[in-house]
Amino acid sequence: MSVAASFSLAAARQLDAADPLTAFRERFVIDDPDLIYLDGNSLGRLPRATVARLDEVIQREWGQRLVRSWGEGWFEAAGRIGDKIARLVGAAEGEVILADSTSVNLYKLTLAALAARPDRQTILTDDLNFPSDLYILQSAAALTGRRVRVIPAADGIHGPAEAICAAINDDTALVSLSHTVFKSGYVYDMATITAAAHRAGALALWDLSHSAGSVLVDLHGAAADLAVGCTYKYLNGGPGAPAFLYVRGDLQGALDNPISGWIGQRDPFDFALDYAPAAGRQRFLSGTPPILSLAAVEPGVELLLEAGMAEVRARSVRLSEYLLALYDERLASLGFRLNSPRDPARRGSHISLGHEEGLRINLALIRDVNVLPDFRRPDNIRLGIAPLYTTFSELYEAVERLRRVVVERLYERHDAADLRVT
Amino acid sequence: MSVAASFSLAAARQLDAADPLTAFRERFVIDDPDLIYLDGNSLGRLPRATVARLDEVIQREWGQRLVRSWGEGWFEAAGRIGDKIARLVGAAEGEVILADSTSVNLYKLTLAALAARPDRQTILTDDLNFPSDLYILQSAAALTGRRVRVIPAADGIHGPAEAICAAINDDTALVSLSHTVFKSGYVYDMATITAAAHRAGALALWDLSHSAGSVLVDLHGAAADLAVGCTYKYLNGGPGAPAFLYVRGDLQGALDNPISGWIGQRDPFDFALDYAPAAGRQRFLSGTPPILSLAAVEPGVELLLEAGMAEVRARSVRLSEYLLALYDERLASLGFRLNSPRDPARRGSHISLGHEEGLRINLALIRDVNVLPDFRRPDNIRLGIAPLYTTFSELYEAVERLRRVVVERLYERHDAADLRVT
Repeated sequence: MSVAASFSLAAARQLDAADPLTAFRERFVIDDPDLIYLDGNSLGRLPRATVARLDEVIQREWGQRLVRSWGEGWFEAAGRIGDKIARLVGAAEGEVILADSTSVNLYKLTLAALAARPDRQTILTDDLNFPSDLYILQSAAALTGRRVRVIPAADGIHGPAEAICAAINDDTALVSLSHTVFKSGYVYDMATITAAAHRAGALALWDLSHSAGSVLVDLHGAAADLAVGCTYKYLNGGPGAPAFLYVRGDLQGALDNPISGWIGQRDPFDFALDYAPAAGRQRFLSGTPPILSLAAVEPGVELLLEAGMAEVRARSVRLSEYLLALYDERLASLGFRLNSPRDPARRGSHISLGHEEGLRINLALIRDVNVLPDFRRPDNIRLGIAPLYTTFSELYEAVERLRRVVVERLYERHDAADLRVT
Repeated sequence: MSVAASFSLAAARQLDAADPLTAFRERFVIDDPDLIYLDGNSLGRLPRATVARLDEVIQREWGQRLVRSWGEGWFEAAGRIGDKIARLVGAAEGEVILADSTSVNLYKLTLAALAARPDRQTILTDDLNFPSDLYILQSAAALTGRRVRVIPAADGIHGPAEAICAAINDDTALVSLSHTVFKSGYVYDMATITAAAHRAGALALWDLSHSAGSVLVDLHGAAADLAVGCTYKYLNGGPGAPAFLYVRGDLQGALDNPISGWIGQRDPFDFALDYAPAAGRQRFLSGTPPILSLAAVEPGVELLLEAGMAEVRARSVRLSEYLLALYDERLASLGFRLNSPRDPARRGSHISLGHEEGLRINLALIRDVNVLPDFRRPDNIRLGIAPLYTTFSELYEAVERLRRVVVERLYERHDAADLRVT
């Protein structure tokens, strides 16, 4: 790393001054400049434009226009915002729509995929997948008499890509994986695994929750069949904002939504007694969407489109490599382990550090030195890099504070049992 | 009706002045005093307190506290607000929780009920049920090899309560009905039908979407097993706000959520690879809730608690009977039909009027005379009475404008094909 030789706050500030995306930080609400927020991979910051947008939705659209707003934009919002997300993940217009939560969308698409492969018994996944995804796959399998085969990751860091490809066979109905895994940040090669699934006649379903807005995703380039993802991490859509789902255009007519609600009906206002699915992505909707949370998604997505995903990804890599260089020089000797891949091509936008005292170190970071990462058991301090607002100076300062917590043993004041949701 | 003799705007204003709940109207944002909003049964008005609450959630909880807010109230919000709704519908603490949409909740509870009655093949419902509910019941039946039997309502207005009770037998797994039906406003006797279901060993699941906040519901008194409901109608929770679900306390441990996501897991932050359901109502959650839309529900529910459901219901009946008296005297002779029950004990808080030109009359009401009801095919102009903000003077004036639309044939300017979502 060329930057490694010049570690100083002044040098970090020079990197910030020279970086083409630094100005995007100003587009977010940042009230405490001392707080180093490294949890944008769990909940992204509030874009300034979102405050104005929500004020409009609450005061004018709900307060004044009332139910008329359904005909003045609310009904189309899930698809309109979906089309913007599509441009971030390599999908086409009409293939992405906002709906429900990631778990509910995963459930719907998994059951749809299983129904499309009635003679195959197996869902393949790995043990790095987000547990909620595993629960949903287990549910879907139990309900339909299938089984879930979980391929283990040998080192707990790198996805078992080869073992998965080797396990795909003519009994495989579906391969379902997190594209970027939540603990280590490992990123799968979507094209290779999807191609292996297709060769065996299986479908591939990708969870993009930790990828959208942070790594380059090319759903069409990879010929991906199905995807789901969350909007409140790198898309900065707000707490629990509706998730998105993707169904490749040519598959939409062949798949059925198992939760057939009125918003997915061909003509919702016909109130026909028998369900007939809408054309296209609309059929994968179920109930009325939560408009306030839905509307909050759009400004954050627009910021990423304005910056450009290639630029966003390039900045994520610059920041991550800088943090890794700092880790090598200043943290590795203090008992930390790198729980993320070295190769930036296989790494998302967060870096997990393990430490024997990781849990208490994490508490000290939050309580004593105003650094906010998160912690994932058993020993992952996740340092999330949100490309639009995390800066080189923040990363420099975060490592300084992390060193201080360990060198001055600040963590000893804390009780591991105190870990709360962060 | 004693009021019928004194129909005038002045008399209506006297009724408003004398009514104990009139002052609640001031608690809502009302920017256009000329607009007569009779669609609170589709989207309730914006409570003033909700504006302030949302500002707090957006600016402080999301903008400043960021991910820390999950540990500072967000995780508990769905249950906390659920407990407040429980007090409106006769449920106990710990039995109601906010989650997903009404459709998704109905899906989850229907599958849970079917799993609890594995040897029974039939779901019973009626053709007055909200179509989305029928679609969900059809989905659940198809997925589990059961069948849905739809009992028809002879007159399209009154629920076929006796026919349903007669149809319940030892093959009935579940009776699922809208407590207040969406077109006519008919209200079922929940206790009688639930008792009939129980005598045959079946479960009863009630959709309270048009009941919560408008009619008296006593889930415990009726021994109801399961319920779902929407929060954006009479609860004034905002567009598409998360729905609620109720599972009677003694049943919670025996029922499984088919969409087993991480928020319903016993310890969501353990990230265990195998699902173990949380105790109590929490197990019926799936994915992360949309916090902005969720938070918006609480102030509207608090307004109803402050007013008291018995008082709210009494006012709903006073207003509805007044509107019916106006209908008898001023509308019945103009070609209108009453598509709602006469008996206030069997009627919710909206009145549906049919008319040969209903669709175009509805358009003229909206476009020409600033009255906002909604229309449900084939011929229902639904006049929704929201007890906390609809007034006697508004109903008087609405009927005057409705007369004008018909007498002056204002509707003839409009094209029925123009009907949009209202």
